[in-house]
Amino acid sequence: MNVLIVHAHNEPGSFTAAMKNLAVVVLSEQGHEVKVSDLYAQRFNPVASAADFGCRANDEYLVYALEQRHNLKNGTLAEDIQAELEKIQWADLIIFSFPIYWFGMPAILKGWIDRVFVSGLCYGGRRIYDRGGLKGKQAMLSFTVGGQSHMFGKDAVHGEIKTLLRPIHQGVLAYVGLEVLPPFIAYHVPYISETDRWTYLNQYCEHMVTLDQREPLAFPSLDDFDATLRPLRR
Amino acid sequence: MNVLIVHAHNEPGSFTAAMKNLAVVVLSEQGHEVKVSDLYAQRFNPVASAADFGCRANDEYLVYALEQRHNLKNGTLAEDIQAELEKIQWADLIIFSFPIYWFGMPAILKGWIDRVFVSGLCYGGRRIYDRGGLKGKQAMLSFTVGGQSHMFGKDAVHGEIKTLLRPIHQGVLAYVGLEVLPPFIAYHVPYISETDRWTYLNQYCEHMVTLDQREPLAFPSLDDFDATLRPLRR
Repeated sequence: MNVLIVHAHNEPGSFTAAMKNLAVVVLSEQGHEVKVSDLYAQRFNPVASAADFGCRANDEYLVYALEQRHNLKNGTLAEDIQAELEKIQWADLIIFSFPIYWFGMPAILKGWIDRVFVSGLCYGGRRIYDRGGLKGKQAMLSFTVGGQSHMFGKDAVHGEIKTLLRPIHQGVLAYVGLEVLPPFIAYHVPYISETDRWTYLNQYCEHMVTLDQREPLAFPSLDDFDATLRPLRR
Repeated sequence: MNVLIVHAHNEPGSFTAAMKNLAVVVLSEQGHEVKVSDLYAQRFNPVASAADFGCRANDEYLVYALEQRHNLKNGTLAEDIQAELEKIQWADLIIFSFPIYWFGMPAILKGWIDRVFVSGLCYGGRRIYDRGGLKGKQAMLSFTVGGQSHMFGKDAVHGEIKTLLRPIHQGVLAYVGLEVLPPFIAYHVPYISETDRWTYLNQYCEHMVTLDQREPLAFPSLDDFDATLRPLRR
């Protein structure tokens, strides 16, 4: 497999970075090809703007998704976007490696999605979900979080983690056709012992060598919806 | 009331911007004081990094939240963060004005949260939810979305909008103690007629003059959890 790890942490010595480094080693050992987009190291620009386009379908009024399609066709997307797009097209599996910020991705990673998952290639019109542009590839979240595992769940203070991940799992990854593998989650990372960190690294290693045994998450199929995306009655 | 509108759109002539401009006029007419943080106009930097700190509790290893607390105490947070914090402290109501990108906020707005909702002031330890640092203030999302309203709901293709908003409503706004008003949502905006746009602006105007009649959304109370944030059995 070709594996792209998109990594976003502002401390190169962080536990999240250790997990990313471990993933590179373990996946390479298994014979996979691995590339890393280290967004902080690349000083990746996360702000979607007119500067992303070398030419414009409409010079006066910016509709970001329309200009994505126009510039994709003309090969005039910003160079950093094109470089990331090439990695996506090369990859069979994309791993997102990050610390949870505010129950979501750090802005630098959210902006990678905003700018790189371009309309016209990754999605567009009814080319979403199981007809999405990245169909045939897989994705997986791999993240650290400050809270403890008992703070997430049905009656827990923050609610179910799968609900909190829904906008990313469904609204980003499944939306563009990626098959979504169950996430790897390391809880309470800033506060746990060295021993518990090693346990997480061991579990992550195990997770990495058994990726092919993981059941992908379930998402809508456009077969169940009509041309206006209304549910078909059967 | 003092109202802060945090606005994030890369096209100054957008419908989202028209909604923001309308909000300024209507709220001012009603005698409220209004300030706008226009993140694209300000060229706001959304990337949380070591550059946000004038001094460091730990020079060698960056733990972002710890340095937020340290720099807050010393008055050495980056100037742009301090300026936004002053607006937050001034505000009784914060309105977030943005187009949905990938079922969430555009990165420039997510990064405003990442950098400005500083640990030690907005939250910290058990100062979350109804004990959060911004308790006593209100917040409201006001956004445009490309999808149509029938694409959201119990059996709809994208699922329930309230589930998709949960990480923002609960994980950001309620988390810091803000009372969350129901959102104002304009669907299918890039594709609707001029007439439908006027209808939305009329509805938004009505929404703005009846804010005090809206029932805030419900979130966890720490009264129902013990000191380790486990649910109390009653």
